Amino acid sequence: SASFDYTEHPHRRYNPLSGRWILCSPHRAKRPWQGSVEDLPPDDRPEYDPKDYLGPGNFRVNGTIQNPKYDSTFVFDNDFQALLADTPHGEVGSVENNDLLVAKAVRGKCRVVCFSPKLNLTVAEMTVKEIKAVVDAWVEEYDTLSKLDYIGHVQIFENKGQMMGCSNPHPHGQIWASEFVPEEPRIALANLKAYHTKKGTHMLEDYVKLEMEAKERIVCQNETFLAVVPFWATWPFEVMVISKMRAPCLVNFTDAMRLDLADIYRRVCARYDNLFTTLFPYSMGIHQAPTENGTDPSKHEYAHFHMHFYPPLLRSATVRKFMVGFEMLGESQRDLTAEQAAARLRDCSEIHFNHAKK
Amino acid sequence: SASFDYTEHPHRRYNPLSGRWILCSPHRAKRPWQGSVEDLPPDDRPEYDPKDYLGPGNFRVNGTIQNPKYDSTFVFDNDFQALLADTPHGEVGSVENNDLLVAKAVRGKCRVVCFSPKLNLTVAEMTVKEIKAVVDAWVEEYDTLSKLDYIGHVQIFENKGQMMGCSNPHPHGQIWASEFVPEEPRIALANLKAYHTKKGTHMLEDYVKLEMEAKERIVCQNETFLAVVPFWATWPFEVMVISKMRAPCLVNFTDAMRLDLADIYRRVCARYDNLFTTLFPYSMGIHQAPTENGTDPSKHEYAHFHMHFYPPLLRSATVRKFMVGFEMLGESQRDLTAEQAAARLRDCSEIHFNHAKK
Ligand SMILES: O=P(O)(O)O[C@H]1O[C@H](CO)[C@@H](O)[C@H](O)[C@H]1O
Ligand SMILES: O=P(O)(O)O[C@H]1O[C@H](CO)[C@@H](O)[C@H](O)[C@H]1O
Repeated sequence: SASFDYTEHPHRRYNPLSGRWILCSPHRAKRPWQGSVEDLPPDDRPEYDPKDYLGPGNFRVNGTIQNPKYDSTFVFDNDFQALLADTPHGEVGSVENNDLLVAKAVRGKCRVVCFSPKLNLTVAEMTVKEIKAVVDAWVEEYDTLSKLDYIGHVQIFENKGQMMGCSNPHPHGQIWASEFVPEEPRIALANLKAYHTKKGTHMLEDYVKLEMEAKERIVCQNETFLAVVPFWATWPFEVMVISKMRAPCLVNFTDAMRLDLADIYRRVCARYDNLFTTLFPYSMGIHQAPTENGTDPSKHEYAHFHMHFYPPLLRSATVRKFMVGFEMLGESQRDLTAEQAAARLRDCSEIHFNHAKK
Repeated sequence: SASFDYTEHPHRRYNPLSGRWILCSPHRAKRPWQGSVEDLPPDDRPEYDPKDYLGPGNFRVNGTIQNPKYDSTFVFDNDFQALLADTPHGEVGSVENNDLLVAKAVRGKCRVVCFSPKLNLTVAEMTVKEIKAVVDAWVEEYDTLSKLDYIGHVQIFENKGQMMGCSNPHPHGQIWASEFVPEEPRIALANLKAYHTKKGTHMLEDYVKLEMEAKERIVCQNETFLAVVPFWATWPFEVMVISKMRAPCLVNFTDAMRLDLADIYRRVCARYDNLFTTLFPYSMGIHQAPTENGTDPSKHEYAHFHMHFYPPLLRSATVRKFMVGFEMLGESQRDLTAEQAAARLRDCSEIHFNHAKK
């Protein structure tokens, strides 16, 4: 009888960062589709729209604040912050006592980072130099926020595309800085620490080495960063960008490394857009050192800078993977393997289809 | 200065079943919406469509198998099973050794449960008697599957609506039976066990008592079941249906209790549909005793039967909550409170708008 082959047989893979298993069903990629097909928003983006709340010189959604006439990036407080700086302290119940109603007041600050004054650009279509300005804005925000006494963690992320709940088409990302370390980075940091305690080496350094030898899950790389579809990927075309050498956070990177970060961010996004010839939706987020208790995050002992890209598309610009039903109630499930996804992304050009056309 | 009030101030709530915190931003429910608005599929469902792969007497998607002319429920093997009964054994790496590539072959079986021969019905519109037949089918499937030597867990669920990735509009649910206990129920069972070990009482029995006294999160109830928006709800109108007395699994319920389950299932779904006058999308799933190692699940010591409803809609039939960005990279976040959501659902009629019209 056949022996187990994870490119063919149903199996689970283990994610050492989250500590969770994922169900993988490689034989299932061919099932027919009768379900939801998304409407593509037409790509008729103007460079400037006076009604764009995030546009340079325009009024914001509240109608009173006016944006400066910015020509690169522009960072400001979110008009509808999920976290506020002045929440009164307080709590209800306690986890230790196994209380069933447990709540805790939390403080924080939410920022918006406009990537470009132009409404009709995305990271995939921007120049490395333009993206470098975004990276520099992140570094500055991370550094400033981490010094606030009520901030323990800075979550930098980008929701791209309507399919990912992006409520404004202007190219932008967000930063939610919070008193607490949110669940996902908390768990990942605990697992990085446990690995280091047990093995004496750093998990993601070992992982980079392994993937550079195996090659089959690599998407692209430069001197400082490696982009891979992780072995334990959940989303069909999930990608992780990892710094080849451990760096706890953004402020550890030299200017040349920041340029490398802009470079790999652009290249991953260009491949994504070219995969299905569409403005490929995703959520991207950076995991790095927390900023708890006034410690210097650049000296963190276990944190290892990496970016996660979670894109929903599965087969085309309009057919997505739904994480529903079994995924919500049971566990995450994927159809094509990480190796197949990486091969598809490797085959894509890094010249954006909108530029190749011209 | 004001003191902490969880109906007003940003806070985190703790979910004792998942062991995870959720960020709650009650002040944020009023933010404007510029993002994705879903297209509603028109409600022109015919009672019968010869092209419906799940219809009675029709051919299935592969074109060779023909469905029987069923007149109640109909259960069969999924034509595109995510899990197979004959996967060869095998594994790669090990979690204990902190290996970074860890995979394990898994066996299982996926079943489909058609709820009704009629294409234009949903649970919200079916009679309690018709839904009782669905419950009876679940009981039989759970009982049969749990006796297979390679099955350790039986996940019963329903994806309703295109927005929830439902690939066929015929009213149906699914059952994925697996060798392993999937991550979500594994974690919930461990937390139920830890609570019982520490407190000597059962978590969800204590929780039912607490909610029946507090009243503010109750949606509806009957003799056997309570429907609440849990204190730690993640999705805007998330609902949990809990058996008031602990019952490990479906087979523990008497015939009268199964009728009560059909009753509360219908009533929760009717309220959902009436909330935004739409066929309200959701994923529903049952958590109950695992069926590991040939043990009798009806004698399980910690498991407590409950259903989770995870619906995505937030403000209307077309505006949904997106669990993206901060939610994927940081932690789950909600805007309105569980108490506000429960009050809205309590205000809804249990007579479906499609019936009230007539
Ligand atoms: O089985 P279906 O209805 O084709 O597919 C749906 O439910 C499955 C189980 O929740 C998911 O894995 C799929 O992503 C979803 O589209
Ligand atoms: O902040 P936005 O773009 O209005 O909203 C989007 O991103 C947020 C942070 O990921 C999410 O909480 C919202 O559900 C999503 O629609």
